[in-house]
Amino acid sequence: MLTTTIATPPAEESDQVVPIIAEEELLHLFEKTLAEQGFMQQDRELYGAVRHIMELKGKRLRPLLLLQANEMFCGNVEQALPAALSIEVFHNFSLVHDDIMDKAALRRGKPTVHEAYGTNNAIIAGDMMLCHAYGLLSRSPQDVLPELMDVFNRATIAIMEGQHLDMEFEDRERISEEEYLDMIWKKTSVLLAAGLQMGAILAGATEKDQVAIFEFGKNFGLMFQIKDDMLDTYGRRQQVGKRIGGDIVQNKKTFLAVSAMNLANAEQQQRISETLLFENEAMKILQMKKLFVETGAKQLAEHKMKYYFMQAFGAMEGIAVQQERKLQLLNLAESIYFREH
Amino acid sequence: MLTTTIATPPAEESDQVVPIIAEEELLHLFEKTLAEQGFMQQDRELYGAVRHIMELKGKRLRPLLLLQANEMFCGNVEQALPAALSIEVFHNFSLVHDDIMDKAALRRGKPTVHEAYGTNNAIIAGDMMLCHAYGLLSRSPQDVLPELMDVFNRATIAIMEGQHLDMEFEDRERISEEEYLDMIWKKTSVLLAAGLQMGAILAGATEKDQVAIFEFGKNFGLMFQIKDDMLDTYGRRQQVGKRIGGDIVQNKKTFLAVSAMNLANAEQQQRISETLLFENEAMKILQMKKLFVETGAKQLAEHKMKYYFMQAFGAMEGIAVQQERKLQLLNLAESIYFREH
Repeated sequence: MLTTTIATPPAEESDQVVPIIAEEELLHLFEKTLAEQGFMQQDRELYGAVRHIMELKGKRLRPLLLLQANEMFCGNVEQALPAALSIEVFHNFSLVHDDIMDKAALRRGKPTVHEAYGTNNAIIAGDMMLCHAYGLLSRSPQDVLPELMDVFNRATIAIMEGQHLDMEFEDRERISEEEYLDMIWKKTSVLLAAGLQMGAILAGATEKDQVAIFEFGKNFGLMFQIKDDMLDTYGRRQQVGKRIGGDIVQNKKTFLAVSAMNLANAEQQQRISETLLFENEAMKILQMKKLFVETGAKQLAEHKMKYYFMQAFGAMEGIAVQQERKLQLLNLAESIYFREH
Repeated sequence: MLTTTIATPPAEESDQVVPIIAEEELLHLFEKTLAEQGFMQQDRELYGAVRHIMELKGKRLRPLLLLQANEMFCGNVEQALPAALSIEVFHNFSLVHDDIMDKAALRRGKPTVHEAYGTNNAIIAGDMMLCHAYGLLSRSPQDVLPELMDVFNRATIAIMEGQHLDMEFEDRERISEEEYLDMIWKKTSVLLAAGLQMGAILAGATEKDQVAIFEFGKNFGLMFQIKDDMLDTYGRRQQVGKRIGGDIVQNKKTFLAVSAMNLANAEQQQRISETLLFENEAMKILQMKKLFVETGAKQLAEHKMKYYFMQAFGAMEGIAVQQERKLQLLNLAESIYFREH
């Protein structure tokens, strides 16, 4: 220890020598550690259901954010991996149960867990994943465990409330912008924000910096979800990898749909109501897209996206680490903002 | 501190002055603390579903065991209450999801959560309760939190496996005694054992005593479940509060049913298979009860119950606390063994 103290440069500069682990390496470490978990290696049917969803992969956005926040604050990646696994297992549990509730047959082009394994197995597999998420989290360093549990729990409860709001909205004609944003904050954004804060806690960040990174995540998440809504309507099929306009066909309450209804005048409202009943899918998509422009809903969505993107960048500014340590997360936010799939 | 040291009697006798809180008082504290929780006081529909199941009450056996173990080892009841709430909320979550999977319409004579609130709400309410269970647990004293999480997590994962085994068994004709006992160990017994151990951990019990109280719980739980099976077939309707013979009517794989099949000779097996198809419920119950006696299944169940009861008592013997501190738990085990409802 003594030799280290002598050999290292003064405190202000010592940050510079802590190398940042790149995104691909973080993702590689994540996948490697995931594959080593007992629940990914067991034969029984129930574990097959767990593997089924975990191996669809997806973006691994939540653990990546957690690990990158941890890197930004000069944390130890080995100590952050259990929490990163925890948050991804939790996210996948929520997908399994959401798919049951939404009666979704496909996810990422493959059968959903309840389609492949039956609803009862999907319920239990999800429950088990939720327990594993907490089990993984509890393998974090003991001195920060209560703090991690607190942040994680507040997020998980909010997510359940968000999912419930989403279901409630299905049966309502009118939803205010505020209500819609509260729902996506809870259903999507809060877990991104919590993951970032957990990465910061694991790296020993100050409370002030934790608040700032949480704020970054909150805005990042709102931007991310509105972008998702936009891509479903305005993306290009080859790039998004699924049929464009699915949300319109299903009368899904997206930011665009909610805003169109709120911004429409009486005549436009009438046309929206008629369009919602269209049987011809291509006509329905075409007409609704026209109404999104006419009412100003598309413009509002673009405005909001940009606003949250800027807010996320702004939240980063006050954080007390060198600019270059922030680049990974800022680049990730930018890639989400400009993504085409 | 010094004056206390001088004033208190020698260590061996000091145990005598720690009063034991009686069962009714523990249950009263439990209900009071439960009613104070935020999730028991909110208006929204989702929380109504949570209250619906929590207010059916039941025996509160799991938190009672946890609190009584904590009392036995001279713990502080206030510090043990969050874990006691946690284990009961977890147990009720599992009832909500089990009832969905079993398509059960009634529980304790009232509509199940999915009957009263719809399946999707029941799935989310259960998920939320599972998260609250962990949230409550994390309010335990920080120095023992990792240990509590470890014991709790191993139990929760086992319970999911037990529920899955139970479902698998439904489609199988023959189940060995060993397989059946493994299933009820996981589905029922492990949470009782874990609760007792958690109470012991919270009271600072030695590892040796933790192992012993866990062993007590394991045997207590197996006895409890076989007794449950017996009461469904041999209980008296007024006392059990539900129709007797329901398990037989539904061809449920109980200890009696599994044992009868395993002990039967070829001719008896034939009669069992025929009886399983009976349409007349009263005839079916009568005939199956006859077969339980003929094959020796009833006798075996009584023998097993007695065996586990004795084993539970035996496990208590090695525990290093005064005999009178053990009485509450021993009396509770006895009341379960002799219960008629």
